Amino acid sequence: MSLTVVGSIAFDAVKSPFGEREKMLGGAAVHFSLAASFFTDVRPVGPVGDDFGADEFAILERRGVQTGDIERVSGGQSFFWRGRYEYDLNVAHTEDTQLGVFGDFEPKLSDEAKAADTLFLANIQPDLQRQVSAQCDAAGFSALDSMNLWIDTAKDSLLAAIAEVDCLVLNDAEIRQLTGESNLARAARAVMGHGPRAVVAKQGEYGAALFTEDEKFFALPGFPLEDVRDPTGAGDSFAGGFLGYLDSHDGELDEACLRRAMGYGTVLASFNVEEFGTERVARLTREEVDERFEALHEMTQFEPLPVR
Amino acid sequence: MSLTVVGSIAFDAVKSPFGEREKMLGGAAVHFSLAASFFTDVRPVGPVGDDFGADEFAILERRGVQTGDIERVSGGQSFFWRGRYEYDLNVAHTEDTQLGVFGDFEPKLSDEAKAADTLFLANIQPDLQRQVSAQCDAAGFSALDSMNLWIDTAKDSLLAAIAEVDCLVLNDAEIRQLTGESNLARAARAVMGHGPRAVVAKQGEYGAALFTEDEKFFALPGFPLEDVRDPTGAGDSFAGGFLGYLDSHDGELDEACLRRAMGYGTVLASFNVEEFGTERVARLTREEVDERFEALHEMTQFEPLPVR
Repeated sequence: MSLTVVGSIAFDAVKSPFGEREKMLGGAAVHFSLAASFFTDVRPVGPVGDDFGADEFAILERRGVQTGDIERVSGGQSFFWRGRYEYDLNVAHTEDTQLGVFGDFEPKLSDEAKAADTLFLANIQPDLQRQVSAQCDAAGFSALDSMNLWIDTAKDSLLAAIAEVDCLVLNDAEIRQLTGESNLARAARAVMGHGPRAVVAKQGEYGAALFTEDEKFFALPGFPLEDVRDPTGAGDSFAGGFLGYLDSHDGELDEACLRRAMGYGTVLASFNVEEFGTERVARLTREEVDERFEALHEMTQFEPLPVR
Repeated sequence: MSLTVVGSIAFDAVKSPFGEREKMLGGAAVHFSLAASFFTDVRPVGPVGDDFGADEFAILERRGVQTGDIERVSGGQSFFWRGRYEYDLNVAHTEDTQLGVFGDFEPKLSDEAKAADTLFLANIQPDLQRQVSAQCDAAGFSALDSMNLWIDTAKDSLLAAIAEVDCLVLNDAEIRQLTGESNLARAARAVMGHGPRAVVAKQGEYGAALFTEDEKFFALPGFPLEDVRDPTGAGDSFAGGFLGYLDSHDGELDEACLRRAMGYGTVLASFNVEEFGTERVARLTREEVDERFEALHEMTQFEPLPVR
C-alpha cells in the first residue's frame, strides 16, 4: 500500500518556555510523513528551495520516506514559519510566515504519487488541494486538513475540496467556525452533510474525537505527558499515524480499524511534542510506538460490571 | 452504605441561548444528591431560607434523597446564583451571588450524616469543609471540590482541607492554578503530594481525567450530545455519579472501580446538561443511566489488534 501527502515542507523557528530553535526541519508534510513512515510507504509532494539540503533529505530518508516528489526549485527559498508558545503551550503566536517557493506551487505528481492508495491533503490553499486530489484518482481513502485562514478567505473552495474527500481532520474550533454551529456533534454532522463519511476533531491536549456514519462516536484523550517541549506538528503527526495505519490495513476501513488508527495518531502526536521539531520522531522506534499504543489502550479501557 | 454531602442548596436564575429560568432549584449539594441518588442513600447538609418550600423538598424526596440535614433558617433567604451562558456554552458569566443563610452557616451534622461511609465536600469555604470533615470521621472515602475564589483568597485553608481527603475533584484550569504548574500531569502529581490518592480533573465538554497512585492515568470524553441547554451543575452531577457509585461498591475502591465510577459520573453530568437545572435528572430513570453507561463504554473501547 502507499500514501501520498501534499503540504508544506519547511523550515521552522520555534521558541517555547522549554527552549528554542532558529532553523529546523518542519512543515505539515514532513511531520505527517515521519509519523506515517512507521506503517507504510509515504511520499510527500511539495516544493523546497536551494536552502533545503542533504541534511534535511537525510532525516526523511532514514525513515524510509520516498522523497522523489519533493521538488527542489532553483534560486528559491523554502517555506518558513516562526512561532512562539506561551507558558501555557496551548497558546501559540505566529510571528512570521514566508511562503517562498510555495507561492508559485503547481502540483505535478509523479506516477508513483498519483497511484497512491491513500491521500492526505495537509493544510494548504484549498484549490491546490483539489488539484492534487484530481490527480490521485486511484486513492481508496482520502483526508483533508485546513485552517481558519481558508475558512475566512476561501470557504467555497474549501467546501468543494471537503466534498471530495472521505475524511475531514480539523481542529474542533475550526469545525465549529466552518459550520457556524457551536455544538461539536452537530457541527460534525453538518460536515458529513457535505460529503465526508468521517470527521476527526483534533482537540489539542484533550485528544481527538471521531464522528462516523450512523451517529457513531469515538474519542481518545491525549496521551498524558509530563514533558511537552514543542507542540508544533502535533496535528500533522496525528494525521500521519492515523492515515499511515489506515493505509497499512488490508481490508475494509471499518469502525474498529478507524478506532485503532485514532490510537496510532494519538501515539505519534504524543512523541512529536516531547522534543523540538522532528527531533523525537526522527529517532523513534516501532517498538516504542507499539509500547505506547498498549499503554494508551490500558489508560482508556474500563469494565462495565453491573452495580451491586 | 451512605453518602453525606455538604454544599450549596440554592435557587438559580439561568439564561442560556436555549432558554431561561428565573428561579429554579439548584446548588452543588442538590445536583450532587440527585445524581448520587441512583446508587446509594445520600444526605445533603446545608442551610436554606423560608423561601425553600415543599416543592423543592419534593424534588429531592421523590429521588429518595434524605433531607433531614437540610436546615431551614427562619427569616432567612436561600443561597441565590444568577448566571448567563454565551452561545459557546463553555463561556459563563456570574451576574449575581447572594449568600443568604449560607453567610452564617455553622455545620451541625446529625448522627446519621456523621456516620456516612463516604463524604463529599462540595465547593464552599474551605474552613467549613474542614469542620464537616472533622465530624465525619467514619468515612472510608472522602472527596473535595473547590473553585478559583478559594485558591485566590484562602489557599492555606484549602490546602489543609485537601490534605484531609482521599480525592480532589476540580476543574483542570483550577488544578493548574492551585499548583502553579501548567502541565496537568505534573499538577496532578503535585496535588497528590499534599495527601489525596486520587485527582479527578474536570474538563468540561472534553470529559474528565483520573490520576491515581503509581502514575496511573485514565480519561473519558464527555458524552457527545447534540442538545445542551444549561451546563449549570454538570461538575456536581459528575461528582454525584462518581461518589454515588463508589459508595455503592462493596469492597476495595481499586482502579477498576474508580474507572467505572468515572463512567457513571460522565453519564450523570451528560443528563444534567440536557435541560435546565434539575429538570432532566429529576425524571431520569435507572434504566436510562445504565443504557447511557453502556453507550459510553461502546464509544470509548478499541481493540489493539497488531498491525499487519
